[in-house]
Amino acid sequence: MAGVDQRAVVELLGVLAYAELTAFDRLAEDARLAPTLDGRAALARMAAAQVAHHERVTARLRELGVTPVEAMVPFVAPLDAFHDGTRASTWLEGLVKAYVGDGLATDFYREIAAFLPQPDHALVDEVLADSGHADFAVREVRAAIVADRAVAGRLALWARRLVGEALTQSQAVIAEHDRLAELIVTGTGSLAGVGELLTRITTAHSARMQALGLNP
Amino acid sequence: MAGVDQRAVVELLGVLAYAELTAFDRLAEDARLAPTLDGRAALARMAAAQVAHHERVTARLRELGVTPVEAMVPFVAPLDAFHDGTRASTWLEGLVKAYVGDGLATDFYREIAAFLPQPDHALVDEVLADSGHADFAVREVRAAIVADRAVAGRLALWARRLVGEALTQSQAVIAEHDRLAELIVTGTGSLAGVGELLTRITTAHSARMQALGLNP
Repeated sequence: MAGVDQRAVVELLGVLAYAELTAFDRLAEDARLAPTLDGRAALARMAAAQVAHHERVTARLRELGVTPVEAMVPFVAPLDAFHDGTRASTWLEGLVKAYVGDGLATDFYREIAAFLPQPDHALVDEVLADSGHADFAVREVRAAIVADRAVAGRLALWARRLVGEALTQSQAVIAEHDRLAELIVTGTGSLAGVGELLTRITTAHSARMQALGLNP
Repeated sequence: MAGVDQRAVVELLGVLAYAELTAFDRLAEDARLAPTLDGRAALARMAAAQVAHHERVTARLRELGVTPVEAMVPFVAPLDAFHDGTRASTWLEGLVKAYVGDGLATDFYREIAAFLPQPDHALVDEVLADSGHADFAVREVRAAIVADRAVAGRLALWARRLVGEALTQSQAVIAEHDRLAELIVTGTGSLAGVGELLTRITTAHSARMQALGLNP
């Protein structure tokens, strides 16, 4: 771990800082689709939590002598492309995106963070910790499926689109950031290690889909 | 103070809880108009602060045995009307609204809170405390005026529209909520007292306009 290139740390914190800012933005937008004031407040809380995480990560970037904007800029295009390509058009789509999409991203960042030295490993784990908001999404989606079975098929398709778009954009990010790519390759140790990482992410994704009552 | 109708407290906390939720919403929307990532993050922080305040106020409502949604519902129409009537179309308009509009609302709520018994008086004061984000709006607006004097005239007009719309909607709120109206009349003690309250609010508003470099 001692041999990790500081620039890889900065790249990971940079993508994370911008990911949190866009997640805030999108959760705030989707909050407007809420059918109830309670739902709207729940998504507003999820959005606010992202801002708190964003602040933790940017504070660390400053500590490392890096301007947060500088660290975030390289990731604006791919992350914006992800969100533009997966704009929720209903309240339920927004919830699935918040739960499935963010879950996938979180697992991915957490896997990479495991290769970082301290204190950055702990910092990333901390800002990625589930703040209990996921329960809300699960409850709402399950209730909607109980009320109308046809919803499940549509949302499962939507989730597959989220995964496809997330894969496309994360490949683009890694392809353009050698230090991040190197971190993953060195960290996993081998191609088999990369395979195991992907298996873990896929397994966790399937579990989330099942929690929602959707076929993975 | 001991004689304050509990329902007046619930009405004030209800309007405040919804005001914070809509302020979150609008700040998040205006964050997208930011010309820089720093500006976007600054507005996102202001939005997140509103959610934290919203949570404090709704927690207190629950303590008082009131469902937050129930307390908020009567204020949805007038507050939405305010925001729909004053939708910022530029980044600077959004900042002026965040600073001048929220400042006005804050002063108004704070004046009424002074008539509340504890712990609600202290709670409202606390959630209304300036979180230092105002400095950011002042800096940005002043810089824009220095760069282009014509901006000042347009923004001063915009601020007057905000004030006019705020007056219209706050009168509507008070007219429909007898307990709030009674709280103000009893609290100020007399018509002269109401006049002094309005003078204090106006003076603070003028100071904010001057801080921005705008003619009140």
